[in-house]
Amino acid sequence: MITTISKFLKEKGITPSVQRIEIMRFMLTHKTHPTVDDIYRELSKSIPTLSKTTIYNTLTLLCDKGAVISFTTDDNTTHYDGVVEEHAHFKCKNCGQIFDVPIPMINNSEPQGFDIQNVEVTYYGICPKCTEYQ
Amino acid sequence: MITTISKFLKEKGITPSVQRIEIMRFMLTHKTHPTVDDIYRELSKSIPTLSKTTIYNTLTLLCDKGAVISFTTDDNTTHYDGVVEEHAHFKCKNCGQIFDVPIPMINNSEPQGFDIQNVEVTYYGICPKCTEYQ
Repeated sequence: MITTISKFLKEKGITPSVQRIEIMRFMLTHKTHPTVDDIYRELSKSIPTLSKTTIYNTLTLLCDKGAVISFTTDDNTTHYDGVVEEHAHFKCKNCGQIFDVPIPMINNSEPQGFDIQNVEVTYYGICPKCTEYQ
Repeated sequence: MITTISKFLKEKGITPSVQRIEIMRFMLTHKTHPTVDDIYRELSKSIPTLSKTTIYNTLTLLCDKGAVISFTTDDNTTHYDGVVEEHAHFKCKNCGQIFDVPIPMINNSEPQGFDIQNVEVTYYGICPKCTEYQ
C-alpha cells in the first residue's frame, strides 16, 4: 500500500515523505472525518516524532493538491475527508457522528431514516463582478 | 427601531439589554455576514465598553434562540447572519465577498453570473441509530 500511496502523492505533485505517506494512508483507511487531534492521537502511537503542526501542514498541502478535503461543522471543528468526490455530510446532533450522504438528499424524503433538521450550504467560486474583471 | 428590536428579543426569550439590542440591530442592518471582529470594529466606536467576549456570547445566545445563524467558511472564519430563512451562501474565491443565494442553485444554470467551483453541504439532524433510541 505504501508504494500505491507514494505513487498517488507524486501524481498529485506532492513529494512523498514517510510522514506524508502515513497521514495519507490514515485518511484513506479512516472514513470517520477525523480532526487533527484525532489523527495525532492515533498516529503518534506509531510515529512518536510526529507533531500536530506537521499533521496540520500536511493536511493543508493535501487539501491544496486535491488529495483530501476539509470542512467545518457548527461546533467550529475542522474535519478532514479522504473521499474527495462531491458529496454532502450529515452530522447527528445527538451522537455527533458524521456520515457521507448524497448532495440532493434535501429534495428527497430523508432516506435511510436520517431526520434532517437544518442544512448549511456554501458555494465557492467567482462572483459576477470578479468574473467581469478576469 | 429600539422598541421593535427589544420586542423581537423578548419574543425569542432573550432579556433585551442595551448591548444585546445594539448587536441585534447591527445584524439586522448589516447583511454582510460579519465576523465577531467586524462587529467589534464598528460597534466599539459608539459603545467603547463593549468587549469581543460580550459580542461572541451575545451571538451564541442569539444563535441558540434562532434570532441569527452562524456558518463557517473554508478559511475557518465564523460569520453571522441576521437572515434566518433557509438559504445558501456563495463565497467569491477572488474578492472574498459572501452572497445570499437560493439553495437549489446547484441544479440550475448558475444564475446571475455566479461561477460555482465547489459546494460544501452539511446537514444537521438525528441519525437513524439515534432516532431508534429516542
